[in-house]
Amino acid sequence: MALIEDLKWRHAVKAYKPNEKVSQENIDKIVEAARLAPSSSGLQPFKVIVIKDQQIKEKLTAGALNPECMRDASHVIIFAAWDRYTAERIDKVYDFTTDERGLPRGRFGSYTDKLKNIYLDQPAELNFAHTARQTYIALGLALAQAAELKVDTTPVEGFDNAVVDEVLNLREQGLRSVSLMYVGIADPANDWIAPMKKVRSPKADFVIEF
Amino acid sequence: MALIEDLKWRHAVKAYKPNEKVSQENIDKIVEAARLAPSSSGLQPFKVIVIKDQQIKEKLTAGALNPECMRDASHVIIFAAWDRYTAERIDKVYDFTTDERGLPRGRFGSYTDKLKNIYLDQPAELNFAHTARQTYIALGLALAQAAELKVDTTPVEGFDNAVVDEVLNLREQGLRSVSLMYVGIADPANDWIAPMKKVRSPKADFVIEF
Repeated sequence: MALIEDLKWRHAVKAYKPNEKVSQENIDKIVEAARLAPSSSGLQPFKVIVIKDQQIKEKLTAGALNPECMRDASHVIIFAAWDRYTAERIDKVYDFTTDERGLPRGRFGSYTDKLKNIYLDQPAELNFAHTARQTYIALGLALAQAAELKVDTTPVEGFDNAVVDEVLNLREQGLRSVSLMYVGIADPANDWIAPMKKVRSPKADFVIEF
Repeated sequence: MALIEDLKWRHAVKAYKPNEKVSQENIDKIVEAARLAPSSSGLQPFKVIVIKDQQIKEKLTAGALNPECMRDASHVIIFAAWDRYTAERIDKVYDFTTDERGLPRGRFGSYTDKLKNIYLDQPAELNFAHTARQTYIALGLALAQAAELKVDTTPVEGFDNAVVDEVLNLREQGLRSVSLMYVGIADPANDWIAPMKKVRSPKADFVIEF
Protein backbone atom coordinates (compact mmCIF):
# COMPACT_ATOMS: atom_id res chain seq x y z
CA MET A 1 0.00 0.00 0.00
CA ALA A 2 1.22 3.54 -0.64
CA LEU A 3 2.84 5.45 2.21
CA ILE A 4 0.03 8.01 2.37
CA GLU A 5 -2.56 5.26 2.83
CA ASP A 6 -0.39 3.70 5.53
CA LEU A 7 -0.16 7.05 7.33
CA LYS A 8 -3.92 7.49 7.15
CA TRP A 9 -4.38 3.99 8.56
CA ARG A 10 -2.16 4.39 11.61
CA HIS A 11 -3.08 6.08 14.86
CA ALA A 12 -1.55 6.30 18.34
CA VAL A 13 -3.03 3.19 19.93
CA LYS A 14 -4.22 3.62 23.53
CA ALA A 15 -4.63 -0.03 24.60
CA TYR A 16 -2.93 -3.30 23.65
CA LYS A 17 -3.86 -6.95 24.05
CA PRO A 18 -1.41 -8.23 26.66
CA ASN A 19 -0.97 -11.75 25.38
CA GLU A 20 -0.52 -11.20 21.66
CA LYS A 21 2.91 -10.77 20.19
CA VAL A 22 4.32 -9.12 17.08
CA SER A 23 6.54 -11.45 15.05
CA GLN A 24 10.30 -11.06 15.18
CA GLU A 25 10.24 -10.67 11.41
CA ASN A 26 8.04 -7.60 11.68
CA ILE A 27 10.08 -6.14 14.53
CA ASP A 28 13.18 -6.60 12.40
CA LYS A 29 11.60 -4.68 9.53
CA ILE A 30 10.59 -1.82 11.83
CA VAL A 31 14.13 -1.61 13.20
CA GLU A 32 15.55 -1.79 9.68
CA ALA A 33 13.51 1.26 8.61
CA ALA A 34 14.97 3.15 11.59
CA ARG A 35 18.46 1.96 10.69
CA LEU A 36 18.09 3.21 7.13
CA ALA A 37 16.90 6.64 8.28
CA PRO A 38 19.02 9.56 7.11
CA SER A 39 20.76 11.63 9.76
CA SER A 40 22.86 14.75 9.89
CA SER A 41 26.19 14.09 8.13
CA GLY A 42 25.29 10.41 8.17
CA LEU A 43 26.46 10.07 11.78
CA GLN A 44 23.42 8.10 13.02
CA PRO A 45 24.02 9.47 16.51
CA PHE A 46 21.65 7.12 18.29
CA LYS A 47 20.71 3.54 18.98
CA VAL A 48 17.41 1.74 19.28
CA ILE A 49 16.71 -0.53 22.21
CA VAL A 50 14.12 -3.23 21.56
CA ILE A 51 12.48 -4.65 24.66
CA LYS A 52 10.46 -7.84 24.61
CA ASP A 53 11.41 -8.95 28.12
CA GLN A 54 8.39 -8.56 30.40
CA GLN A 55 10.42 -7.91 33.54
CA ILE A 56 12.19 -4.97 31.98
CA LYS A 57 8.89 -3.57 30.72
CA GLU A 58 7.54 -3.87 34.27
CA LYS A 59 10.49 -1.85 35.56
CA LEU A 60 9.89 0.80 32.93
CA THR A 61 6.23 1.22 33.93
CA ALA A 62 7.49 3.28 36.90
CA GLY A 63 8.34 6.03 34.45
CA ALA A 64 5.46 5.60 32.00
CA LEU A 65 2.48 7.91 31.65
CA ASN A 66 0.56 4.94 30.23
CA PRO A 67 1.86 2.01 32.31
CA GLU A 68 -0.78 -0.34 30.89
CA CYS A 69 0.53 0.22 27.37
CA MET A 70 4.11 -0.30 28.55
CA ARG A 71 3.06 -3.56 30.19
CA ASP A 72 0.73 -4.86 27.47
CA ALA A 73 2.58 -3.88 24.31
CA SER A 74 4.32 -6.77 22.62
CA HIS A 75 7.55 -4.78 22.28
CA VAL A 76 8.82 -1.38 23.33
CA ILE A 77 11.34 0.34 21.09
CA ILE A 78 13.37 3.12 22.67
CA PHE A 79 15.26 5.75 20.71
CA ALA A 80 18.36 6.84 22.63
CA ALA A 81 20.67 9.52 21.30
CA TRP A 82 24.36 10.11 21.87
CA ASP A 83 24.83 12.32 24.92
CA ARG A 84 27.48 14.28 23.00
CA TYR A 85 29.67 14.16 19.91
CA THR A 86 33.25 13.06 20.35
CA ALA A 87 36.15 12.80 17.91
CA GLU A 88 36.19 9.02 18.46
CA ARG A 89 32.51 8.63 17.63
CA ILE A 90 32.78 10.73 14.49
CA ASP A 91 35.92 8.93 13.34
CA LYS A 92 34.39 5.50 13.99
CA VAL A 93 31.47 6.27 11.67
CA TYR A 94 33.63 7.73 8.91
CA ASP A 95 36.28 5.00 9.16
CA PHE A 96 33.55 2.41 8.74
CA THR A 97 32.05 4.34 5.83
CA THR A 98 35.32 4.66 3.96
CA ASP A 99 36.16 0.98 4.63
CA GLU A 100 32.76 -0.05 3.26
CA ARG A 101 33.26 2.11 0.19
CA GLY A 102 36.77 0.87 -0.46
CA LEU A 103 38.17 4.36 0.07
CA PRO A 104 41.22 5.33 2.12
CA ARG A 105 40.47 6.30 5.71
CA GLY A 106 40.57 10.06 6.03
CA ARG A 107 39.06 10.54 2.56
CA PHE A 108 36.44 12.78 4.21
CA GLY A 109 38.93 14.22 6.69
CA SER A 110 38.33 17.87 5.84
CA TYR A 111 34.62 17.30 6.37
CA THR A 112 35.02 15.48 9.68
CA ASP A 113 37.45 18.18 10.83
CA LYS A 114 34.71 20.71 10.16
CA LEU A 115 32.20 18.64 12.14
CA LYS A 116 34.63 18.35 15.03
CA ASN A 117 35.27 22.09 14.99
CA ILE A 118 31.55 22.72 15.29
CA TYR A 119 30.47 20.04 17.73
CA LEU A 120 33.40 19.52 20.06
CA ASP A 121 33.38 23.18 21.09
CA GLN A 122 29.70 23.03 22.01
CA PRO A 123 28.41 22.13 25.48
CA ALA A 124 27.21 18.49 25.63
CA GLU A 125 23.63 19.72 26.08
CA LEU A 126 23.74 21.46 22.71
CA ASN A 127 25.22 18.36 21.07
CA PHE A 128 22.39 16.32 22.57
CA ALA A 129 19.75 18.76 21.30
CA HIS A 130 21.07 17.95 17.83
CA THR A 131 21.44 14.19 18.22
CA ALA A 132 17.96 13.97 19.77
CA ARG A 133 16.42 15.66 16.73
CA GLN A 134 17.88 13.01 14.45
CA THR A 135 16.07 10.25 16.30
CA TYR A 136 12.72 11.67 15.24
CA ILE A 137 13.42 10.92 11.59
CA ALA A 138 13.98 7.29 12.55
CA LEU A 139 10.91 7.28 14.80
CA GLY A 140 8.78 8.52 11.91
CA LEU A 141 10.12 5.91 9.51
CA ALA A 142 9.70 3.12 12.09
CA LEU A 143 6.06 4.15 12.59
CA ALA A 144 5.54 4.19 8.82
CA GLN A 145 7.12 0.75 8.45
CA ALA A 146 4.88 -0.64 11.18
CA ALA A 147 1.86 0.87 9.43
CA GLU A 148 2.87 -0.75 6.16
CA LEU A 149 2.87 -4.08 8.02
CA LYS A 150 -0.43 -3.22 9.77
CA VAL A 151 1.32 -3.48 13.10
CA ASP A 152 -0.12 -1.21 15.79
CA THR A 153 2.07 1.39 17.47
CA THR A 154 2.09 4.39 19.78
CA PRO A 155 4.80 7.05 19.57
CA VAL A 156 5.55 8.31 23.08
CA GLU A 157 7.42 11.23 24.56
CA GLY A 158 5.47 11.21 27.81
CA PHE A 159 7.70 9.17 30.08
CA ASP A 160 10.34 9.74 32.71
CA ASN A 161 13.67 9.75 30.92
CA ALA A 162 15.57 9.28 34.18
CA VAL A 163 13.78 6.00 34.88
CA VAL A 164 14.37 4.68 31.37
CA ASP A 165 18.01 5.76 31.35
CA GLU A 166 18.54 4.11 34.75
CA VAL A 167 16.77 0.82 34.00
CA LEU A 168 18.59 0.42 30.69
CA ASN A 169 21.89 1.78 31.95
CA LEU A 170 21.97 4.25 29.08
CA ARG A 171 24.07 7.02 30.61
CA GLU A 172 26.98 4.65 31.12
CA GLN A 173 26.83 3.91 27.40
CA GLY A 174 26.90 7.59 26.48
CA LEU A 175 23.23 7.54 25.53
CA ARG A 176 20.08 9.35 26.68
CA SER A 177 16.53 8.24 25.97
CA VAL A 178 14.54 10.59 23.73
CA SER A 179 11.32 8.90 22.67
CA LEU A 180 9.86 5.44 22.59
CA MET A 181 7.29 3.51 20.71
CA TYR A 182 4.93 0.80 21.82
CA VAL A 183 4.47 -1.98 19.29
CA GLY A 184 1.75 -4.55 19.67
CA ILE A 185 -1.73 -5.73 18.87
CA ALA A 186 -4.35 -3.09 19.64
CA ASP A 187 -7.23 -3.94 21.94
CA PRO A 188 -10.19 -2.37 20.10
CA ALA A 189 -12.48 -2.64 23.13
CA ASN A 190 -10.26 -0.28 25.12
CA ASP A 191 -8.52 1.74 22.42
CA TRP A 192 -10.88 4.69 22.91
CA ILE A 193 -9.33 6.82 20.17
CA ALA A 194 -9.72 4.18 17.45
CA PRO A 195 -13.30 5.08 16.44
CA MET A 196 -12.52 8.80 16.25
CA LYS A 197 -11.78 10.56 13.00
CA LYS A 198 -8.11 11.23 12.29
CA VAL A 199 -7.70 14.99 12.23
CA ARG A 200 -4.88 17.00 10.77
CA SER A 201 -4.43 20.69 10.11
CA PRO A 202 -6.08 21.52 6.77
CA LYS A 203 -3.65 21.89 3.91
CA ALA A 204 -4.49 25.58 3.53
CA ASP A 205 -3.25 26.19 7.10
CA PHE A 206 -0.34 23.79 6.92
CA VAL A 207 1.37 24.88 3.71
CA ILE A 208 2.69 28.22 2.53
CA GLU A 209 3.58 28.30 -1.17
CA PHE A 210 5.80 30.66 -3.11
CA MET B 1 7.59 -0.61 -3.60
CA ALA B 2 8.04 -1.37 0.09
CA LEU B 3 9.28 1.39 2.37
CA ILE B 4 12.58 -0.36 3.09
CA GLU B 5 13.34 -0.58 -0.64
CA ASP B 6 12.46 3.09 -1.02
CA LEU B 7 14.81 3.98 1.83
CA LYS B 8 17.61 1.96 0.26
CA TRP B 9 17.00 3.72 -3.04
CA ARG B 10 17.18 7.29 -1.75
CA HIS B 11 20.32 9.27 -0.99
CA ALA B 12 21.13 12.88 -0.25
CA VAL B 13 21.56 14.24 -3.76
CA LYS B 14 24.46 16.65 -4.25
CA ALA B 15 23.58 18.19 -7.65
CA TYR B 16 20.35 18.90 -9.51
CA LYS B 17 19.49 19.60 -13.12
CA PRO B 18 18.49 23.27 -13.12
CA ASN B 19 15.85 23.14 -15.82
CA GLU B 20 13.86 20.07 -14.86
CA LYS B 21 10.85 20.34 -12.63
CA VAL B 22 9.01 17.99 -10.30
CA SER B 23 5.28 17.81 -11.01
CA GLN B 24 2.85 19.62 -8.75
CA GLU B 25 1.12 16.28 -8.18
CA ASN B 26 4.30 14.79 -6.71
CA ILE B 27 5.00 17.87 -4.61
CA ASP B 28 1.46 17.63 -3.24
CA LYS B 29 2.02 14.01 -2.22
CA ILE B 30 5.28 14.86 -0.48
CA VAL B 31 3.57 17.66 1.45
CA GLU B 32 0.64 15.36 2.25
CA ALA B 33 2.98 12.82 3.87
CA ALA B 34 4.38 15.63 6.04
CA ARG B 35 0.85 16.79 6.89
CA LEU B 36 -0.13 13.29 7.99
CA ALA B 37 2.93 12.95 10.24
CA PRO B 38 2.21 12.30 13.89
CA SER B 39 3.30 14.95 16.40
CA SER B 40 3.32 15.36 20.13
CA SER B 41 -0.28 15.57 21.41
CA GLY B 42 -1.35 16.00 17.79
CA LEU B 43 -0.47 19.69 17.87
CA GLN B 44 1.40 19.76 14.54
CA PRO B 45 3.43 22.71 15.79
CA PHE B 46 4.95 23.63 12.44
CA LYS B 47 4.27 24.56 8.84
CA VAL B 48 5.94 23.67 5.59
CA ILE B 49 6.89 26.33 3.09
CA VAL B 50 7.12 25.15 -0.50
CA ILE B 51 9.22 27.33 -2.77
CA LYS B 52 9.13 27.03 -6.52
CA ASP B 53 9.75 30.73 -7.19
CA GLN B 54 13.25 31.17 -8.59
CA GLN B 55 13.71 34.66 -7.19
CA ILE B 56 13.05 33.50 -3.65
CA LYS B 57 15.41 30.57 -4.10
CA GLU B 58 18.06 33.03 -5.27
CA LYS B 59 17.57 35.10 -2.13
CA LEU B 60 17.92 31.97 0.01
CA THR B 61 21.24 31.01 -1.59
CA ALA B 62 22.85 33.68 0.62
CA GLY B 63 22.27 31.37 3.57
CA ALA B 64 22.86 28.02 1.88
CA LEU B 65 25.91 25.80 2.34
CA ASN B 66 25.13 24.36 -1.10
CA PRO B 67 23.90 27.37 -3.05
CA GLU B 68 23.95 25.44 -6.34
CA CYS B 69 21.45 22.93 -4.95
CA MET B 70 19.25 25.72 -3.62
CA ARG B 71 19.32 27.34 -7.05
CA ASP B 72 18.97 24.23 -9.19
CA ALA B 73 16.46 22.18 -7.18
CA SER B 74 13.00 22.20 -8.65
CA HIS B 75 11.46 23.00 -5.26
CA VAL B 76 12.70 23.76 -1.77
CA ILE B 77 10.55 22.64 1.14
CA ILE B 78 11.23 24.35 4.45
CA PHE B 79 10.11 22.98 7.82
CA ALA B 80 9.40 25.84 10.22
CA ALA B 81 8.32 25.20 13.80
CA TRP B 82 6.25 27.32 16.17
CA ASP B 83 8.54 29.66 18.09
CA ARG B 84 6.58 28.80 21.28
CA TYR B 85 3.38 27.25 22.48
CA THR B 86 0.51 29.57 23.37
CA ALA B 87 -2.95 28.89 24.80
CA GLU B 88 -4.47 30.21 21.59
CA ARG B 89 -2.45 27.87 19.39
CA ILE B 90 -3.27 24.84 21.53
CA ASP B 91 -6.97 25.75 21.68
CA LYS B 92 -7.14 26.33 17.94
CA VAL B 93 -5.90 22.81 17.23
CA TYR B 94 -8.18 21.16 19.76
CA ASP B 95 -11.25 23.23 18.79
CA PHE B 96 -10.73 22.15 15.19
CA THR B 97 -10.26 18.53 16.25
CA THR B 98 -13.43 18.41 18.35
CA ASP B 99 -15.39 20.16 15.59
CA GLU B 100 -14.18 17.63 13.04
CA ARG B 101 -15.10 14.77 15.34
CA GLY B 102 -18.54 16.13 16.15
CA LEU B 103 -17.59 16.50 19.82
CA PRO B 104 -18.25 19.48 22.08
CA ARG B 105 -15.41 21.97 22.28
CA GLY B 106 -13.57 21.46 25.54
CA ARG B 107 -14.03 17.69 25.38
CA PHE B 108 -10.26 17.36 25.83
CA GLY B 109 -10.08 20.34 28.21
CA SER B 110 -8.36 18.53 31.05
CA TYR B 111 -5.70 17.35 28.62
CA THR B 112 -5.14 20.76 27.05
CA ASP B 113 -4.99 22.29 30.53
CA LYS B 114 -2.21 19.87 31.32
CA LEU B 115 -0.36 20.82 28.14
CA LYS B 116 -0.73 24.51 28.95
CA ASN B 117 0.56 23.94 32.46
CA ILE B 118 3.65 22.31 31.07
CA TYR B 119 4.43 24.47 28.07
CA LEU B 120 3.31 27.96 28.97
CA ASP B 121 5.58 28.02 32.03
CA GLN B 122 8.61 27.10 29.94
CA PRO B 123 10.89 29.64 28.27
CA ALA B 124 10.11 30.02 24.55
CA GLU B 125 13.47 28.45 23.72
CA LEU B 126 12.48 25.23 25.49
CA ASN B 127 9.12 25.21 23.70
CA PHE B 128 10.95 25.60 20.41
CA ALA B 129 13.33 22.73 21.23
CA HIS B 130 10.21 20.57 21.42
CA THR B 131 8.37 21.92 18.37
CA ALA B 132 11.56 21.64 16.30
CA ARG B 133 11.90 17.95 17.15
CA GLN B 134 8.42 17.27 15.78
CA THR B 135 9.37 18.61 12.36
CA TYR B 136 11.90 15.80 11.91
CA ILE B 137 9.15 13.19 11.87
CA ALA B 138 7.53 15.07 9.00
CA LEU B 139 10.88 15.54 7.27
CA GLY B 140 11.48 11.79 7.41
CA LEU B 141 8.08 10.96 6.02
CA ALA B 142 8.40 13.57 3.27
CA LEU B 143 11.73 12.05 2.23
CA ALA B 144 10.16 8.58 2.24
CA GLN B 145 7.23 9.77 0.15
CA ALA B 146 9.57 11.35 -2.37
CA ALA B 147 11.55 8.10 -2.53
CA GLU B 148 8.35 6.14 -3.18
CA LEU B 149 7.75 8.47 -6.15
CA LYS B 150 11.41 8.21 -7.23
CA VAL B 151 11.78 11.93 -6.76
CA ASP B 152 15.26 13.05 -5.75
CA THR B 153 15.80 14.95 -2.52
CA THR B 154 18.39 16.27 -0.10
CA PRO B 155 17.61 16.78 3.59
CA VAL B 156 19.47 19.86 4.82
CA GLU B 157 20.28 21.37 8.18
CA GLY B 158 23.34 23.22 6.94
CA PHE B 159 21.95 26.66 6.20
CA ASP B 160 21.70 30.02 7.88
CA ASN B 161 18.39 30.06 9.73
CA ALA B 162 18.51 33.84 10.11
CA VAL B 163 18.60 34.32 6.33
CA VAL B 164 15.75 31.89 5.73
CA ASP B 165 13.64 33.37 8.54
CA GLU B 166 14.24 36.86 7.18
CA VAL B 167 13.57 36.13 3.50
CA LEU B 168 10.36 34.25 4.32
CA ASN B 169 9.29 36.59 7.10
CA LEU B 170 8.93 33.62 9.44
CA ARG B 171 9.53 35.32 12.79
CA GLU B 172 6.59 37.65 12.26
CA GLN B 173 4.43 34.55 11.79
CA GLY B 174 5.64 33.00 15.03
CA LEU B 175 7.76 30.47 13.14
CA ARG B 176 11.44 29.56 12.99
CA SER B 177 13.09 27.52 10.26
CA VAL B 178 14.47 24.15 11.38
CA SER B 179 15.41 22.11 8.34
CA LEU B 180 14.79 22.10 4.63
CA MET B 181 14.74 19.71 1.79
CA TYR B 182 15.72 20.12 -1.82
CA VAL B 183 13.44 18.37 -4.26
CA GLY B 184 14.34 17.98 -7.90
CA ILE B 185 15.87 15.93 -10.65
CA ALA B 186 19.38 14.75 -9.78
CA ASP B 187 22.22 15.54 -12.15
CA PRO B 188 24.12 12.23 -12.23
CA ALA B 189 27.19 13.79 -13.85
CA ASN B 190 27.75 16.03 -10.82
CA ASP B 191 26.07 14.09 -8.02
CA TRP B 192 29.40 12.75 -6.74
CA ILE B 193 27.89 10.68 -3.96
CA ALA B 194 25.52 8.74 -6.23
CA PRO B 195 27.97 5.99 -7.22
CA MET B 196 29.09 5.39 -3.64
CA LYS B 197 27.70 2.57 -1.53
CA LYS B 198 25.03 3.57 0.96
CA VAL B 199 26.49 2.89 4.40
CA ARG B 200 24.66 2.52 7.68
CA SER B 201 25.74 1.36 11.09
CA PRO B 202 25.59 -2.47 11.15
CA LYS B 203 22.54 -3.84 12.91
CA ALA B 204 24.70 -5.36 15.66
CA ASP B 205 25.94 -1.88 16.58
CA PHE B 206 22.64 -0.12 16.06
CA VAL B 207 20.27 -2.29 18.08
CA ILE B 208 20.32 -3.42 21.70
CA GLU B 209 17.82 -6.17 22.46
CA PHE B 210 16.33 -7.31 25.76
